[in-house]
Amino acid sequence: MRDTARGWHQDGLSIGLVPTMGALHAGHMSLVDAARHENDRVVVSIFVNPMQFGAGEDLGRYPRSPEHDQSMLRAAAVDAIYKPSVADMYPPGSSSRVVVHGVTDRLEGAARPGHFEGVATVVTKLFTATSADRAYFGQKDAQQVAVVRRLALDLDLGVEIRVCPTVREADGLALSSRNAYLSPPERQAAVCLSRALGLAAEAYGRGERDPVRLRAILQGPIEAEPLARLEYAEVVDPSTFSPGGSLAVLAVRIGKTRLIDNYDLKLPYPG
Amino acid sequence: MRDTARGWHQDGLSIGLVPTMGALHAGHMSLVDAARHENDRVVVSIFVNPMQFGAGEDLGRYPRSPEHDQSMLRAAAVDAIYKPSVADMYPPGSSSRVVVHGVTDRLEGAARPGHFEGVATVVTKLFTATSADRAYFGQKDAQQVAVVRRLALDLDLGVEIRVCPTVREADGLALSSRNAYLSPPERQAAVCLSRALGLAAEAYGRGERDPVRLRAILQGPIEAEPLARLEYAEVVDPSTFSPGGSLAVLAVRIGKTRLIDNYDLKLPYPG
Repeated sequence: MRDTARGWHQDGLSIGLVPTMGALHAGHMSLVDAARHENDRVVVSIFVNPMQFGAGEDLGRYPRSPEHDQSMLRAAAVDAIYKPSVADMYPPGSSSRVVVHGVTDRLEGAARPGHFEGVATVVTKLFTATSADRAYFGQKDAQQVAVVRRLALDLDLGVEIRVCPTVREADGLALSSRNAYLSPPERQAAVCLSRALGLAAEAYGRGERDPVRLRAILQGPIEAEPLARLEYAEVVDPSTFSPGGSLAVLAVRIGKTRLIDNYDLKLPYPG
Repeated sequence: MRDTARGWHQDGLSIGLVPTMGALHAGHMSLVDAARHENDRVVVSIFVNPMQFGAGEDLGRYPRSPEHDQSMLRAAAVDAIYKPSVADMYPPGSSSRVVVHGVTDRLEGAARPGHFEGVATVVTKLFTATSADRAYFGQKDAQQVAVVRRLALDLDLGVEIRVCPTVREADGLALSSRNAYLSPPERQAAVCLSRALGLAAEAYGRGERDPVRLRAILQGPIEAEPLARLEYAEVVDPSTFSPGGSLAVLAVRIGKTRLIDNYDLKLPYPG
């Protein structure tokens, strides 16, 4: 991968990277499209990163669809698929970690200890291995976006972080590989996340700024849904993830499946 | 720096980096010479990195000689001097760190908490900012060498770590910017480090392998020197810094000045 990337740079070609864990859906493909428009070469990495999964989490059953992924990426004519093994990424003796303080303290960072250390370490490795000029992330993982922006800047990685809007189903559910875990009734229940964000955006549009009332509005549709259990609902600053901005963030369990979603309340809600 | 380095790579030129904290001496210049022989372009970075100094350490009085450094590097015809400010390196909000576990647990890592986190973070930044193909370090900072080798590999930085032999005064004292702190009697006393390493190498050459006896041999000349106080003397593996290899490492206070030195006992001692 490194030799290919260096050859491209030597030829004056720019490189866009789309880091994924496979199980590709239209959200990923929107990132590939964006990368294609802005770069001479597009690399998609596929790596289910054990380091970012906690002990009780879904590493073992995380959806995998290698043939489907391959044919989607072939259809999109990407220039390279970088698909390292776990042993390639973490050979015996490997012991370095990238740690981002501050923005990782709360919400996803608190709910999933070690998650962002795993994300920051693997993303750094993917950036350096592919010599990416730009890297593409979905807004759906908003706190991950904040972590990656921070480390790219802090470690002088010379990669521009590009963020693409969350892609949603017709009823508003944000696309996620984990939606595959949902039973049909859970799938119906899962619309409560985007409904909550829509109500909060409406209220914000009418002038509501009180974080306590915005939070209550976010909680309403989740608490009304018998299959849902709220983990957190907050309005935060999108760079620091401390309270007080206009980004509404949600984590909700639907049955055993943990879903996250977010919306910048300053934007009109499309739903 | 990044644009210059990328331009060189685009022209197919290789880049050697010599990271320094300034106060240049013949040890540093031996690294510059090696970089010159093996690369098309040579970059010397000068940055006294606050992050690698502990609270009670010598950051404030660390020797600085900008004009002397400049003229030495001009005479050596290096291609670029990269001299970022502290604000360039750590702007407000910067919060990412590179942490190397394992090899940093003992000896220098234990004596100087946070030191190797500071080293690993700044070295990663220097490697990425300069797009170095090779980076040059002195064997004198043996544990730093092990940390840097580890992180370069673990984070896929694509930089080859080259290590050059310790440069010594005629009496054996390893060159160090911190030797400038020594009074004349302390300077004389400081020869006890290299003398201890020489005695251990002699014993090893005669077949001595018992770590307890080797350690006692290392301690002898330090304890015989009234101005010296031993911090540690061990024989370790040069990659992991766990006990059991053939690298003798020493940390000794001469008055208020903390000096380190090391020697691979498998080599014949030149002294």
